[in-house]
Amino acid sequence: METLLLDADAVDEHSPTTAVVDAVEAAFAAHARGDTVMPAKSYVDLPQYDGDFRSMPAYLDAGDWDAAGLKWVNSHTENRRRHDLPTVMATMCYSDPETGLLLSIMDGTTLTTKRTGAAAAVATDRLAVRDATTLGLVGAGAQSYAQLDAILTVRPIETVVVADADPDRAAAFVEAVRDRVDARVGSIAEAVACDVVSTTTPVRDPIVDADDVGDHTHVNAVGADAPGKHELDDDLLAAAKLVVDDREQCTHSGEINVPYAAGRLTDDDIHAALGTVVIGEATGRTPADGVTVFDSTGLAVQDVAAARVVYERASAAGAGVAFDLLGR
Amino acid sequence: METLLLDADAVDEHSPTTAVVDAVEAAFAAHARGDTVMPAKSYVDLPQYDGDFRSMPAYLDAGDWDAAGLKWVNSHTENRRRHDLPTVMATMCYSDPETGLLLSIMDGTTLTTKRTGAAAAVATDRLAVRDATTLGLVGAGAQSYAQLDAILTVRPIETVVVADADPDRAAAFVEAVRDRVDARVGSIAEAVACDVVSTTTPVRDPIVDADDVGDHTHVNAVGADAPGKHELDDDLLAAAKLVVDDREQCTHSGEINVPYAAGRLTDDDIHAALGTVVIGEATGRTPADGVTVFDSTGLAVQDVAAARVVYERASAAGAGVAFDLLGR
Repeated sequence: METLLLDADAVDEHSPTTAVVDAVEAAFAAHARGDTVMPAKSYVDLPQYDGDFRSMPAYLDAGDWDAAGLKWVNSHTENRRRHDLPTVMATMCYSDPETGLLLSIMDGTTLTTKRTGAAAAVATDRLAVRDATTLGLVGAGAQSYAQLDAILTVRPIETVVVADADPDRAAAFVEAVRDRVDARVGSIAEAVACDVVSTTTPVRDPIVDADDVGDHTHVNAVGADAPGKHELDDDLLAAAKLVVDDREQCTHSGEINVPYAAGRLTDDDIHAALGTVVIGEATGRTPADGVTVFDSTGLAVQDVAAARVVYERASAAGAGVAFDLLGR
Repeated sequence: METLLLDADAVDEHSPTTAVVDAVEAAFAAHARGDTVMPAKSYVDLPQYDGDFRSMPAYLDAGDWDAAGLKWVNSHTENRRRHDLPTVMATMCYSDPETGLLLSIMDGTTLTTKRTGAAAAVATDRLAVRDATTLGLVGAGAQSYAQLDAILTVRPIETVVVADADPDRAAAFVEAVRDRVDARVGSIAEAVACDVVSTTTPVRDPIVDADDVGDHTHVNAVGADAPGKHELDDDLLAAAKLVVDDREQCTHSGEINVPYAAGRLTDDDIHAALGTVVIGEATGRTPADGVTVFDSTGLAVQDVAAARVVYERASAAGAGVAFDLLGR
């Protein structure tokens, strides 16, 4: 009874973007059909260490396959400065739902990056204009690379404009992706005028003005992941066709949490959850739509779906290290 | 940034009973002082597989040390018959609370067995008569061995009477422990007449009659871990001085859950939580007391405290296998 150990490199190697996007799409569909078991995230808050842990267990039945697992992830905001460690580190326990056997333990940090990009691709596929050729990225950290990779699988992106408060980081992004797309550094206003936009910053004061956004732009709002964080102007959110990954999580800690808490946005302003769009219960973009916004907080079922891709491919390839935890 | 992998044998080797009892006692004390963060267990119920998963995250600050972690555990009741696999398998993720680093992944099954025995020892130390020399065990499975090991650290047990529906299992227990104590197979009535009793069966109809229990016996009720399960007669519980590991868990799924749901027992019948007895806020056994009962459901902080013992000792001994999940 061996458990397959997969480090960050193995997760990266065995998570081809198209496969992860498909799996995450299936997870959203299952969520909308009610074919998931996903308790609310549990938080272990440790203010004395400026940190917290979250446990995210889930099961999903995609019809052709099902999968179960748990992500255990921390966020310690002062880690970089105090300990030269990443702020966020995650571990994924991937289990057989039929027997409970622990099939794999894998790095959850790379997995999170990939499944987050994949969710934006699923949303972009439903909400962006069909012939979108320009992509604006606000923020040039690790997640911006995942956004580009995933969105390229659903739209014929040719031109990328990247904005970041750190010019070196923006330049490094351009350098890294220039063999695949026509990329350049630009202002936030230039980035958000593109056909598709992804915002991936941790700001608490919005940095995207409604006036700068293109008339038919689709925005993936990815950065906000805690109460108090938001990247987009309230006016933009109020006017947009708004799709969430999960109503409860988004109103609690997603892009819309601040205006929602203030009463500036209400439940009626939320067009739909992404899964209901995927299964056709709610509309995606229609000719009448202007700006669309996808509020992404990250669901445990995305992690489980992405972990299945990694586990299936890595085990078929003979990758990873087998370890017998139970010793029998 | 390596994570120490510890299999069941390593967990067993590096969890000396006295150290685990001390750590679990500290966890109960921290729980009573409010120095723990312990969200409710999350359940992923999968009736289609006759199983479930539970995630149990926790942090505790014992004063001299603190610790954090998560146990991911399944219970698939038909595993043995259908798959020749254990019903319950658990994995423990042990993390540094200061940085969030995953310090160790260890077998959680052996850990659970040991920390459960340890809780009974902590309770026995406060609730059994001081010169207890006889121990009755109802049920002769894996947990009965842990009960004996742990209780031997707090009371001068000389004689053990073990009762089990399977005579071979009872005989095997006697054979295994006879070099340490004077052990014999007996009836349930004979077992529960001892000074200290531990019941570890999964029954749904009580098998311990009030009339058979000794006048000053302390009973550790360990077996009930789900709604509908109970081992002790209602009359016994109603008459006993009743101590719980956690009020919420015990009324939901512990020994008292059935009579509590039926209104036969109320909050007023619960004398105290074990932690409050440990820190002296509530009394343990007093000369006036007759039968005492400890209702044990198992707290996530017990797992974290026991995991710390294992991790500290295993890493000092150079045991286990280091694996770099993050790959940096």
